[in-house]
Amino acid sequence: LEEERDEIVRELVVPLHYADTADLIESLHGDHRSRLIDLLRPDFNPEILPELPDDIRDEIIERYGFADFAALIEELDSDDAVYILDRMDEAEQAHVLARLPLETRTIVEQGLNYPEYTAGRLMQRELAAVPDYWTVGEAIDYLRSNAVLPEDFYVLFVVDPRHRPVGIVRLNRLLRAKRPVRLRDIMSTELDIMKVDMDQEDVAFLFRRKDLLSAPVVDASGRLVGRITIDDIVDVIDEEAEDDILRLAGLSESSIYVSTWETIKSRFTWLFVNLGTAILASLVIGLFESSLEQIVALAVLMPIVASMGGNAGTQTLTIAVRGLAMKELTASNAMRVVGKELAVGAANGIAFAVLTGAIAWAWFDQPMIGAVIAMAMVINLVIAALSGIAIPLGLERLKIDPAVASAVFLTTVTDVIGFLAFLGLATIFLL
Amino acid sequence: LEEERDEIVRELVVPLHYADTADLIESLHGDHRSRLIDLLRPDFNPEILPELPDDIRDEIIERYGFADFAALIEELDSDDAVYILDRMDEAEQAHVLARLPLETRTIVEQGLNYPEYTAGRLMQRELAAVPDYWTVGEAIDYLRSNAVLPEDFYVLFVVDPRHRPVGIVRLNRLLRAKRPVRLRDIMSTELDIMKVDMDQEDVAFLFRRKDLLSAPVVDASGRLVGRITIDDIVDVIDEEAEDDILRLAGLSESSIYVSTWETIKSRFTWLFVNLGTAILASLVIGLFESSLEQIVALAVLMPIVASMGGNAGTQTLTIAVRGLAMKELTASNAMRVVGKELAVGAANGIAFAVLTGAIAWAWFDQPMIGAVIAMAMVINLVIAALSGIAIPLGLERLKIDPAVASAVFLTTVTDVIGFLAFLGLATIFLL
Repeated sequence: LEEERDEIVRELVVPLHYADTADLIESLHGDHRSRLIDLLRPDFNPEILPELPDDIRDEIIERYGFADFAALIEELDSDDAVYILDRMDEAEQAHVLARLPLETRTIVEQGLNYPEYTAGRLMQRELAAVPDYWTVGEAIDYLRSNAVLPEDFYVLFVVDPRHRPVGIVRLNRLLRAKRPVRLRDIMSTELDIMKVDMDQEDVAFLFRRKDLLSAPVVDASGRLVGRITIDDIVDVIDEEAEDDILRLAGLSESSIYVSTWETIKSRFTWLFVNLGTAILASLVIGLFESSLEQIVALAVLMPIVASMGGNAGTQTLTIAVRGLAMKELTASNAMRVVGKELAVGAANGIAFAVLTGAIAWAWFDQPMIGAVIAMAMVINLVIAALSGIAIPLGLERLKIDPAVASAVFLTTVTDVIGFLAFLGLATIFLL
Repeated sequence: LEEERDEIVRELVVPLHYADTADLIESLHGDHRSRLIDLLRPDFNPEILPELPDDIRDEIIERYGFADFAALIEELDSDDAVYILDRMDEAEQAHVLARLPLETRTIVEQGLNYPEYTAGRLMQRELAAVPDYWTVGEAIDYLRSNAVLPEDFYVLFVVDPRHRPVGIVRLNRLLRAKRPVRLRDIMSTELDIMKVDMDQEDVAFLFRRKDLLSAPVVDASGRLVGRITIDDIVDVIDEEAEDDILRLAGLSESSIYVSTWETIKSRFTWLFVNLGTAILASLVIGLFESSLEQIVALAVLMPIVASMGGNAGTQTLTIAVRGLAMKELTASNAMRVVGKELAVGAANGIAFAVLTGAIAWAWFDQPMIGAVIAMAMVINLVIAALSGIAIPLGLERLKIDPAVASAVFLTTVTDVIGFLAFLGLATIFLL
């Protein structure tokens, strides 16, 4: 495709939606990517920038220079501008900031001062706010005359004389009301106000729960400083769901586009931790070397107990981690959930004890082997259920993200207890 | 709390947001729940209904009777009404439908005819549509006069004489334009039109990618029949992310509120499948009984190889399943991703082969045991990487949801190959 036909490429790429263009740039390599970036320069849509990974944005800075890059940033909404500046190293950031007009620079610098993952970072500074004593007609005239409004908005924020939000007027209400009506009389006062330092997870939780579309953000003194819109929240929800899935599998990368070398490094760490826990399990087996020498059937059967424990524990763990993330699992119902999980673990433990016991008995023609594996199964499935819920709750209390570390602890427990129970009981009853 | 103070309870509960009320009802049990449902009857907010699980809605029908329940349904948006009716058994559905006014009944019945998980099910029938030859003034007058409009909307759909959508006008644009301007001149024609039979995952994908807020839905002949709004999409995104997480752990329940008995049953199925694969692994070990009798160290070390393979494979699998769900992993880049995963598997395989080989050598003071476990580790980590990507791609091609079945297949492969490689190589080189 990309041999010599510059004009055709431009004609094809320029009309694309910015998300598609970003994907296209990301999927190309080396010279092809650089060529495309150069070709797009005259009509580069700034909206493409937030969709790209950091290294490709660096390449764009390199090819366009700081001045042109700052001009692109200037056209973005303040939340996107802050997002991009935040992900640059300090020297680059200073270069770009220096080339922004004073007003934009001030807004971006303020944004960068809010801690990461807070409402302050998510919000856009551009918003439509009007005083509460205005009428519908005055508000409409203001909207018609005012050029500094955001490009798109769906609600008007109504503020009191101290610029604190007191209500919102959805635009369709404004349109349907008569001009002399006071905003005060048509505004909705059921307001979900976000503080600038609120965690983005809590913001997303409120949006999702109350089906919000747009919410006012206030500073420490309660003054309206920005708005958060649902499309930013969709990104947060995606990110957090993705984080949960990836962390449960011990991954920190977020996409299939990460380089091979980065992938090797990030996965190595987790596998290294897992090697430690596997060796711990082997040490437990090593304690019973003489039992294994005498009854080789134990070696054949022992992975079954550990594997069933690991799987049962993972089921409980996933529900617990998800429950914590969705705020369904709280201190007030924790004991009830623990009780339920123990009951589930015990019930399935007994069911699988009977099944596995019968299979082991039939296989090795020794009833005692069946009895031993059955006992070990009940013990391990109950312990698995208990660990599956207790480990994430404990980590949460220690302020460690349960999604990151729970899975290692859990499999360590189920492996160690699985081998210990099975081989220990076998040593007691079979030798 | 809920002893005798009915009035106080009502005063506390009635002003709550519907999502909070639904949670409260859900968290109560038995008599307390029934009491609260009865207490709320005079001011029951219909919006609570879609937030409740099916069995609690059944309890409400039982206590309120079909006529009152139908009156609540009548007040809901059509998409919520369809959602609720769809989840009832046929007899109940017929009772409620019979008590709805003709117009609502027709709309709900049409909705129920669309297949599940399609745009037709998600959409609301209520929408604001205007012809393209109107002016801003005419549109505003229409909005002011018309009572059958949806309660809230953010865009006007512009349709041609055959009622096909040709553009959208965002309300803020409408407000800021002068009355004589033609809608045609301010409308945006960059339209993402959804077909009624489009899969909800594809709808969500478009919303997310293009930052849509509201999209028109058309029937087979291209006529505008409904709209989908972003708040419905947030629910879809949540559901699908949750499904992915839960299915990877072999769970089909979706919340910590599911009853203990249901939980036991749903988890049993997955554990039963897992028992089958664990026994398969044990059969492989059984092939090498005589080797294990002669060198007990093999029994001690063998879980390490299987466990590392399982973990490495799960990492690849999670990335692949997530990549497929997010449409990042496609036929066009599949081979590149497979190549990368193989390289990552081989690199980490060699790293852990060296590590584990050295540890095994030191532990049992036999260099050959170290060499054997090292070889087995490389083999299993490469196979794990290959399976981690090939299994979900294969299932996707067979139109089976890769999130559901991949994990079982993967651990079967890594266990079997892990034990086979380690014990097989040991039998060849050590005996």
